Amino acid sequence: MSLDAVLKRIDETLPEATDRLLELLRIPSISTDPAYKGECDRAADWLVAELSALGFDAAKRPTPGHPMVVARSKGEGRHVLFYGHYDVQPVDPLSLWDRDPFDPEVQDTPRGKVIRGRGSSDDKGQLMTFVEACRAWKAETGKLPGNLTIFFEGEEESGSPSLIPFMRENADELKAEIALICDTGLFESTQPAIVTMLRGLLGEELTIRGASRDLHSGMYGGAAMNPIRVLSKIIAGLHDENGRITVPGFYDGVSELPDAVRAQWQNLAFDHAKFLGDVGLSEPAGEKDRTPLEMIWSRPTCDVNGIWGGYTGDGFKTVLPSEAHAKISFRLVGQQDPLAIRENFRAYVRSMLPADCTVEFHGHGAGPASQMEIGDPAFEQARGALTTEWGRAASYVGCGGSIPIAGYFKSILGMDAMLIGFGKDDDQIHSPNEKYDVESFHKGIRSWARILAALD
Amino acid sequence: MSLDAVLKRIDETLPEATDRLLELLRIPSISTDPAYKGECDRAADWLVAELSALGFDAAKRPTPGHPMVVARSKGEGRHVLFYGHYDVQPVDPLSLWDRDPFDPEVQDTPRGKVIRGRGSSDDKGQLMTFVEACRAWKAETGKLPGNLTIFFEGEEESGSPSLIPFMRENADELKAEIALICDTGLFESTQPAIVTMLRGLLGEELTIRGASRDLHSGMYGGAAMNPIRVLSKIIAGLHDENGRITVPGFYDGVSELPDAVRAQWQNLAFDHAKFLGDVGLSEPAGEKDRTPLEMIWSRPTCDVNGIWGGYTGDGFKTVLPSEAHAKISFRLVGQQDPLAIRENFRAYVRSMLPADCTVEFHGHGAGPASQMEIGDPAFEQARGALTTEWGRAASYVGCGGSIPIAGYFKSILGMDAMLIGFGKDDDQIHSPNEKYDVESFHKGIRSWARILAALD
Repeated sequence: MSLDAVLKRIDETLPEATDRLLELLRIPSISTDPAYKGECDRAADWLVAELSALGFDAAKRPTPGHPMVVARSKGEGRHVLFYGHYDVQPVDPLSLWDRDPFDPEVQDTPRGKVIRGRGSSDDKGQLMTFVEACRAWKAETGKLPGNLTIFFEGEEESGSPSLIPFMRENADELKAEIALICDTGLFESTQPAIVTMLRGLLGEELTIRGASRDLHSGMYGGAAMNPIRVLSKIIAGLHDENGRITVPGFYDGVSELPDAVRAQWQNLAFDHAKFLGDVGLSEPAGEKDRTPLEMIWSRPTCDVNGIWGGYTGDGFKTVLPSEAHAKISFRLVGQQDPLAIRENFRAYVRSMLPADCTVEFHGHGAGPASQMEIGDPAFEQARGALTTEWGRAASYVGCGGSIPIAGYFKSILGMDAMLIGFGKDDDQIHSPNEKYDVESFHKGIRSWARILAALD
Repeated sequence: MSLDAVLKRIDETLPEATDRLLELLRIPSISTDPAYKGECDRAADWLVAELSALGFDAAKRPTPGHPMVVARSKGEGRHVLFYGHYDVQPVDPLSLWDRDPFDPEVQDTPRGKVIRGRGSSDDKGQLMTFVEACRAWKAETGKLPGNLTIFFEGEEESGSPSLIPFMRENADELKAEIALICDTGLFESTQPAIVTMLRGLLGEELTIRGASRDLHSGMYGGAAMNPIRVLSKIIAGLHDENGRITVPGFYDGVSELPDAVRAQWQNLAFDHAKFLGDVGLSEPAGEKDRTPLEMIWSRPTCDVNGIWGGYTGDGFKTVLPSEAHAKISFRLVGQQDPLAIRENFRAYVRSMLPADCTVEFHGHGAGPASQMEIGDPAFEQARGALTTEWGRAASYVGCGGSIPIAGYFKSILGMDAMLIGFGKDDDQIHSPNEKYDVESFHKGIRSWARILAALD
């Protein structure tokens, strides 16, 4: 087979590939909101139909939550599993979108053409780079590339509740020699990268309760405990004045960077001022003695992702609410134990409760950090293919986000994973006006063709 | 005229009076929410029609916000102005109501019959006690009682933005010899009372902004400032460990209670444990060295009435929000200056902002505390009438809530006000399942008949 011919076909059929992606983006598969359950199902059906048409043995596989999609093409060479997720983040605040998040389009912008819409970058656009690489390969050579399993999840944005049971029950079917995960980005928007260090994630939701009902702040204000004040004090106490997290034992298992890695990161062309400046900030807000790159790649964090309580509508209501709520998450590194931190966090919250207040916890996901072993030759083969396609040396980098699947591939299926993706820093994933550069989509498809050829 | 005959007629026509109140309660006149503007108008029309039918010269009077209702009946004796408000609080959280808040009904409960519905106690049920007393009086004697002006407002629950301009423009028409205000309660749900000390109210809404857009907490968490954390720290810092408010200059103008008043309050049958216990609390949460009665009548407070930011829906979203919001109010006493406190509060908030954060303020109402002069003989006449009707000595008491109208009657129209009402502590005003006891309504009507006879 001729790689050049495949690449040429990818170039020539880009408009059709883009149209297919737009079709998938029109399905509002928001996994965290039960109202969109049917839409998640529809996205899975759409993918099964696409993969089946390409010659994969593809099926929608039920779970207690949203379905998985598993597709198999038996061929020659190493058995490779490709992972992506078809679910997307919620779209609120909807008022900040310039157009309907589920009515995507290709737009001309001063920085080039972009595909605008929820999920364009995270992760529908990315997973379709692989599907389209397979399509061009098949069209040019008459068969699908290599020995492939495709595995698409529909709950990545909602804590992946069905993932571990599904992987355990179907371990024989899913186990390959190496995994490819397409849910990350280019380094600094320009340099191809393979992520080898990922932070873990622990999510907690808490409700603080005071009086047995909402009170009038005139009648009770001053005498009755206000749960919003209690919650604010709990949140304010989570960091000390140096930006360190105060939960007892929180830093157990956090190691300093090896000197070699620190040196490599210092050589990366990471523009700290631009990283913050792009989103209107000027000073790093984390631990005082760390660089932003350390903060987001190798240091753990605690953030409040949502807070609500009392009257939040127009105007004013002098209510003294009976409840206050927050969603809090921790990004974890090294050997930090999510379950131990959950217990310590809950004990900290209980220790902050005044008389007459109670707390109820609801645990969301809890995944540890993970670190890839890059001894497998596939890493260098893929790095070479990426370097050729992008014209710049591909790097091994860290990632501030949490992609627990990489850890599960190792712990449950015993295989290493290469995290390769083509998102850019300004893609606004999880935010209004999410986009994916047409360049990311186009060169992403070409990158997979090159990588599949290199692994072949 | 015979007061006994009027009272007998009130007893006999209670079912019809109750039906009229239910009709008014069916109008969802939520003043703070622009969506209900038409309903506020409809409530005003309903009152004008009722008062006109009784022989008042009544009219709906436009304002830039919701209309006022002014009605006049020229007769003999001292000119008395009666004030109430026809607007009501919002109803959220709607899920905690046992029935539609605007489909009121009379219910049998273990503690007697109640009228259930939004506004039943605050303030439609209360203002209708006066209207029904006038009706019975007219039916029995052929004329309305005394020399009356009725003044109903439709913006009391939303900061009364039109009140001061309207009173200034119509001062000659509204000025009477004394005002009656029906928007307070019985003392301890059983003892009739005239409120002579009212707290003021200052409302502030603030928005803290960080990054220029919502961020992914994996990509930016740790490095980017989180506005919810900033807001929590601001709120947590508003009180010191003794429950005192930390805003500079906040206690300027706050006096200690005179010994005589303190002694009178100590003699009141106020059950502190029951006051808190009724709403599921056991310990007063305010300043450490004060009793709950002091906390709610004579001490200033600061409370958070609402807070929101980030993702607040089902599930979890690892967003690092660009904005966080809170509604904060202060109850004021003595000579505290609301505008000085607003400035000092805003300066405190600005002093707490880290780099890269900005704040936007939106001021809601700002009314000082007020204290009645009880030298006018009307106070003792009304106290005697209340004592007779309820069979217990009526008291002069304080009130934790803010009824700025009493201060405005003094400062703009130069008249004292008597605050007399029949609400009970368990009426759940501003909360789900608001009710007004049928006893409050019935004996409230009878009380006004007796007071009008005593003032006559």
